[in-house]
Amino acid sequence: MEGEENKKFAEYFIGKSYLSFLNDKEVYIFNITFEPGCRNNWHIHHGAGQILICTGGKGWYQEQGKEARLLKSGEIVYIPPEVKHWHGAVIDEGFAHLSLALPAENSSNEWCEPVTDEEYEKLNYKK
Amino acid sequence: MEGEENKKFAEYFIGKSYLSFLNDKEVYIFNITFEPGCRNNWHIHHGAGQILICTGGKGWYQEQGKEARLLKSGEIVYIPPEVKHWHGAVIDEGFAHLSLALPAENSSNEWCEPVTDEEYEKLNYKK
Repeated sequence: MEGEENKKFAEYFIGKSYLSFLNDKEVYIFNITFEPGCRNNWHIHHGAGQILICTGGKGWYQEQGKEARLLKSGEIVYIPPEVKHWHGAVIDEGFAHLSLALPAENSSNEWCEPVTDEEYEKLNYKK
Repeated sequence: MEGEENKKFAEYFIGKSYLSFLNDKEVYIFNITFEPGCRNNWHIHHGAGQILICTGGKGWYQEQGKEARLLKSGEIVYIPPEVKHWHGAVIDEGFAHLSLALPAENSSNEWCEPVTDEEYEKLNYKK
């Protein structure tokens, strides 16, 4: 696993993840690695969006009211500001993505409810 | 090779490269793949920098007046604006990197002289 255990945001994740900070010049870049089954809570980026670059394993990205999208290495996701969403690994394989964000004034993250085991498992067992 | 042959900028490259455009929201993201021995000319980004995320193979990054840096997958390079530099593959292996740039007003690229075979080969045969 790359980086240190993600304790700072652990309360907003189900399962274990790892975080490493890669760049703070012009664009913030983090690497996030999710153990199988790990996902973050529904959340919203206010003020600026986020870009995910998938670098390993398989994962999910879902926006509220839409079908979840299965992600694999090389794929890119643009998450617009103000859109409620979650991302994480599939149930039986780890996942890693880079996370890019512009340093924007007055930007913030709003953390919401977890993705329940029921909705997560339904997703994974029909894939 | 990922993407189409990079004909648009071919006059500023020695060797063959491939370009694909991946994202235009908030941050421009390209993938650039270099065949072995391929490198771009010395050049300068005016107004905004560039970030390289190495995704495969082995390559070089060099700023004017400094030692060349050998790059491999997973490494990140921040290229400040106004710094003359070049990048490309090593002589015996291909190289791929993502290239990130902020959409900045009044930004431009200044293309300069090629990296000569002599300086490029010296670098490669001492590595």
